[in-house]
Amino acid sequence: MVDVAIVGAAGYAGIELVRLVLGHPRLNLVCATSGSDAGRRIASLYPALEGATELVFSAPDAETIGAMADVAFLAVPHTAAMAMVPALLEAETTVIDLSADFRLRDPLTYEAWYGVKHTAPELISEAAFGLPELDRSQLPGARLVACPGCYPTATVLAAYPAIEAGIVKPGSRVVADAKSGVSGAGRTPTATTHYVSANESVAPYAVTAHRHTPEIAQALGDVAGQPVPVLFTPHLIPMSRGLLSTVYLDLAEGFAEGLSTADAVDLYRNHYAGEPFVYVHDAGRMPSTAEVRGSNRAAIGLAVDQATRTLIAVCAIDNLVKGAAGQALQCANAVLGYPETEGLDRPLPVV
Amino acid sequence: MVDVAIVGAAGYAGIELVRLVLGHPRLNLVCATSGSDAGRRIASLYPALEGATELVFSAPDAETIGAMADVAFLAVPHTAAMAMVPALLEAETTVIDLSADFRLRDPLTYEAWYGVKHTAPELISEAAFGLPELDRSQLPGARLVACPGCYPTATVLAAYPAIEAGIVKPGSRVVADAKSGVSGAGRTPTATTHYVSANESVAPYAVTAHRHTPEIAQALGDVAGQPVPVLFTPHLIPMSRGLLSTVYLDLAEGFAEGLSTADAVDLYRNHYAGEPFVYVHDAGRMPSTAEVRGSNRAAIGLAVDQATRTLIAVCAIDNLVKGAAGQALQCANAVLGYPETEGLDRPLPVV
Amino acid sequence: MVDVAIVGAAGYAGIELVRLVLGHPRLNLVCATSGSDAGRRIASLYPALEGATELVFSAPDAETIGAMADVAFLAVPHTAAMAMVPALLEAETTVIDLSADFRLRDPLTYEAWYGVKHTAPELISEAAFGLPELDRSQLPGARLVACPGCYPTATVLAAYPAIEAGIVKPGSRVVADAKSGVSGAGRTPTATTHYVSANESVAPYAVTAHRHTPEIAQALGDVAGQPVPVLFTPHLIPMSRGLLSTVYLDLAEGFAEGLSTADAVDLYRNHYAGEPFVYVHDAGRMPSTAEVRGSNRAAIGLAVDQATRTLIAVCAIDNLVKGAAGQALQCANAVLGYPETEGLDRPLPVV
Amino acid sequence: MVDVAIVGAAGYAGIELVRLVLGHPRLNLVCATSGSDAGRRIASLYPALEGATELVFSAPDAETIGAMADVAFLAVPHTAAMAMVPALLEAETTVIDLSADFRLRDPLTYEAWYGVKHTAPELISEAAFGLPELDRSQLPGARLVACPGCYPTATVLAAYPAIEAGIVKPGSRVVADAKSGVSGAGRTPTATTHYVSANESVAPYAVTAHRHTPEIAQALGDVAGQPVPVLFTPHLIPMSRGLLSTVYLDLAEGFAEGLSTADAVDLYRNHYAGEPFVYVHDAGRMPSTAEVRGSNRAAIGLAVDQATRTLIAVCAIDNLVKGAAGQALQCANAVLGYPETEGLDRPLPVV
Repeated sequence: MVDVAIVGAAGYAGIELVRLVLGHPRLNLVCATSGSDAGRRIASLYPALEGATELVFSAPDAETIGAMADVAFLAVPHTAAMAMVPALLEAETTVIDLSADFRLRDPLTYEAWYGVKHTAPELISEAAFGLPELDRSQLPGARLVACPGCYPTATVLAAYPAIEAGIVKPGSRVVADAKSGVSGAGRTPTATTHYVSANESVAPYAVTAHRHTPEIAQALGDVAGQPVPVLFTPHLIPMSRGLLSTVYLDLAEGFAEGLSTADAVDLYRNHYAGEPFVYVHDAGRMPSTAEVRGSNRAAIGLAVDQATRTLIAVCAIDNLVKGAAGQALQCANAVLGYPETEGLDRPLPVV
Repeated sequence: MVDVAIVGAAGYAGIELVRLVLGHPRLNLVCATSGSDAGRRIASLYPALEGATELVFSAPDAETIGAMADVAFLAVPHTAAMAMVPALLEAETTVIDLSADFRLRDPLTYEAWYGVKHTAPELISEAAFGLPELDRSQLPGARLVACPGCYPTATVLAAYPAIEAGIVKPGSRVVADAKSGVSGAGRTPTATTHYVSANESVAPYAVTAHRHTPEIAQALGDVAGQPVPVLFTPHLIPMSRGLLSTVYLDLAEGFAEGLSTADAVDLYRNHYAGEPFVYVHDAGRMPSTAEVRGSNRAAIGLAVDQATRTLIAVCAIDNLVKGAAGQALQCANAVLGYPETEGLDRPLPVV
Repeated sequence: MVDVAIVGAAGYAGIELVRLVLGHPRLNLVCATSGSDAGRRIASLYPALEGATELVFSAPDAETIGAMADVAFLAVPHTAAMAMVPALLEAETTVIDLSADFRLRDPLTYEAWYGVKHTAPELISEAAFGLPELDRSQLPGARLVACPGCYPTATVLAAYPAIEAGIVKPGSRVVADAKSGVSGAGRTPTATTHYVSANESVAPYAVTAHRHTPEIAQALGDVAGQPVPVLFTPHLIPMSRGLLSTVYLDLAEGFAEGLSTADAVDLYRNHYAGEPFVYVHDAGRMPSTAEVRGSNRAAIGLAVDQATRTLIAVCAIDNLVKGAAGQALQCANAVLGYPETEGLDRPLPVV
Repeated sequence: MVDVAIVGAAGYAGIELVRLVLGHPRLNLVCATSGSDAGRRIASLYPALEGATELVFSAPDAETIGAMADVAFLAVPHTAAMAMVPALLEAETTVIDLSADFRLRDPLTYEAWYGVKHTAPELISEAAFGLPELDRSQLPGARLVACPGCYPTATVLAAYPAIEAGIVKPGSRVVADAKSGVSGAGRTPTATTHYVSANESVAPYAVTAHRHTPEIAQALGDVAGQPVPVLFTPHLIPMSRGLLSTVYLDLAEGFAEGLSTADAVDLYRNHYAGEPFVYVHDAGRMPSTAEVRGSNRAAIGLAVDQATRTLIAVCAIDNLVKGAAGQALQCANAVLGYPETEGLDRPLPVV
């Protein structure tokens, strides 16, 4: 058994990690930290875990975690992760980081979007990017994995096969119009997350300014081999969990006449053949967030609009699982040499 | 007092019309028809109207309606309206049509999108288009008004001031990514509208194929003076009412460098100055559907993305009010020479 | 016009008062206070009021309010009201108090349930109880009105006609099992009101200990002419507004055999005949909170269970309107000699 | 491996059974029937199961099922079960029946409440009642198990330990005020289950007339050794799944003075010690439906009201799991000699 620590375990992504690690046959949860809930039984704060664990939240301390854990998941805000990673790596603890701190290759981009100086820039290049469907080659044996955000996960999965196949107009703008449930806004109560504010309402937020924009651009730019301009507009939706990204891609000249929706479906199915967590709907069908609730899967739907030479690629995920905790565990499995599906393959409540 | 009939009064738009007409100081509701609920007290089906009316739903019959009513609102599905309009006009009853039957100027376009032959094509040219903010000149004294659909209302209000001002690249594709509450799907129970299906889920539907597409294209094409390619993607959202359209417009060359979000806000505010039902948020703020719940107002938010030379124009309406019943009443006010706000200006529940 | 101040106007009940006062033909809103939002335009915080008012929240100050307003509505937490009432009365400002401070006749009961000493006990006896359907005789010309809480309003309206008619077993326990939307918990964001906590969940709270218990007992005891033991259990329900109280009343001996549900309906309809805001459903039908959303009405349904000699009396209200702001305005109308329905009778969105 | 058929597999309880059986290590799903969806891939109707099974819904036929399956779960409406059970038993297929057909011992009671004649009354006495926590002695090796309804499961678990312990006044009325999510109303779309009807609303239904009443009375009467009058009032709540029953029990004379909430908690904890699926909250804490979402557990909270000598016992379950599919699987485990928790013990999404 591999000993595991979860840092930031009382947040929404953190507690999903607790749930998943407890159900994993080869991982042993030895430590779950929470600054605000230290000393409290996990199952007291989250009675859904009553009977599943008697563990108590502890205060986060890098030295203790490094001493106890073979693998540490960091489900903490940006800056908190980079403050802790050097000590954990020194203690030879593998780090699976869910924060933004090691996702962007260029520390100046990080500083421009996050408004703080990166304190461990020398480690950025060492971080494997934690989107296995895009590139899993760096994961086996990695010391540090930077898992992408929820929006980049869904958006990149929707867009990159078309870009890689060369059917998207080079250099054209990618529009990603995304919709997320309220758990994406985190567990801290705010005016925005108040039930009465969020219920019966939909609204965009952080328009042109969301920090996931450079992440999407970096990943798609890598695939395209040139910069990809990204326009990303997130919306808050009245539901607890789930994320859907509707991506508009300009078809390259010469492809517009010929390509049908069925062709696009074939292309994506070939691309994702063998991926355990991605499935592509038949032409004429689109994914819903409900169908991936609680699971690590990404559901993709495609449509070609001949009139405007556009490929509409839609991806639905659970923002807390494939968008956070589940993907982190998938990465940990890859790092440790386990099947990526280990602990992530049990069917979940259907409706 | 003007005698009013509401045809299709038991549907969601119809019953909102009942509510609004009952609260209007110069209109007198004499007839509310429902094929399926004829003979039943309105307030028995909808106890929210208990105490407000003792009227009973009657069976729809054009001759009776024509004899009773000075004005008839048709809140019926397409084809049902055009079957009834000739007889109503013959009886000199003014028709405010909420269906799609008289919205598209070209009967061939109608037939292509609706799959049926138009049975009263000679009346199409006579229909005033019922979006007063776009063009109210044809409304005073009109015999027949064709009110736009809910999606075109929000999308056109978001897009056309920019097109009219010439800041949108001529001939460029307009992407409208829209989100609607479940009442938009109508009152008939289906698998899609079942609470358990719609709750905790978001999904696109009718992608590239929604019948509101040609309506949007016609209205924006009129403004542009040339065809405007429209890509329209509606999504179903877990809420009862409300509609938000996020519209992506390519900025014309030469404008991209200079235009700020504040400039766009100024432009829209100047454009909509004096409009009682449209307001434009400050730069940095976006509208939510919650803020227009139950009202006839349209809330607009704007953002310019310098990096991709895009104007993001967002419009929130209540799909059943500004998107249907309220706008129909606004049009009736204009037809009858009343202030457009008559019966539509009382503040509504705030949260 | 009567000049009106609303104290605590940024809370949920307060902002509903703003909405209602703005729509009232004889009231003039001159002042809306908010400790936390002073200096901010009302319509900026609540864009649903955009276009309806340009008023700015001011800081609460009893002297200023007393100088400006003929009538002050206090939509503030307990203790804040009694701190302000003496100065307002001295300034000859009529006070409609929505807090708990003047509801309980016995200051010791107040102190036992609220854990603080009453600072203006001499004014308690002067306060008219603001449930007009129970007793409106003290309202005309009153200087101080103590409006009941949302739960007591629904529960007392459901229970007291049966008690008054003598069909309830004297001294028997009244069980009130109530369900409230999340706005009842107030506007301050907390773990409980977080969307993700409240959504898809129902739970009781404050069992045996909710502060509305003595209020219900006092009102029903007055009607019965003897103490009425009350067991009150509130539940939090995933909806924004609405409150339903299901009340279980033991039928008096001798009545059990004979009384039918139809008899109970007749009794309640006779009792409430002429009440503009209360209606009683036919036997076999029960009220829903949806049917009174946004309105000042109370919908009542009744059922007699012969097997257990129980009358089940159910009352649905909007917790923010008949349970708070609307009832306060109804009381103000009564105080001022206006029809109680003034400003409260416009039909509201139906679905 | 034991071969399993699920009859009525496309309904909400049926598809949860599919999910659970697919995740069970010793059961092999060989057949899933649906009258309306026969011929369709399960995962096409419910994409949440995409990748988990390639099985296709088949038409229900008792002979085929009997030939294929060692165990058949019947997730069908009443009457459909009793029509099929004799043939299945003849084929030596063990039947776990989720319908009401074999729950009531007295066929006359069945006929009185269901309005149809029982067609297999000779089998009623053979049916083991499928609430293991109440009595699991008849389950091992049973040929036929009659699982209780969702409301009786929660209500009996809340009430019977107190009755068995003798702290409830003999012969006193039990009031069960229950709240259920919309999935309890079944998958067929109706006016009641339409999103717009159910959202933002709570209402009681079937007051004094719900068919689960005699089931609750029978189970509690067995425990009490005398008839227990039951008043059961279900309410529909705007959520997909979850059920909470708030039960009011009169404390027996002599117990009222002494019993504290902590005593009640001790009593229930002793009673349920060793039960893997029941847990009892500390005094002062009440269960929510959210904490048992998707799981087979029942969460219980208790409060003693000294003033009215009442024990309030609250039980939260997932109506589709402990209230239907999960409990059926728990019973099947008991019948087959497996640990009752087999296939039911994986932690589920926490928020």
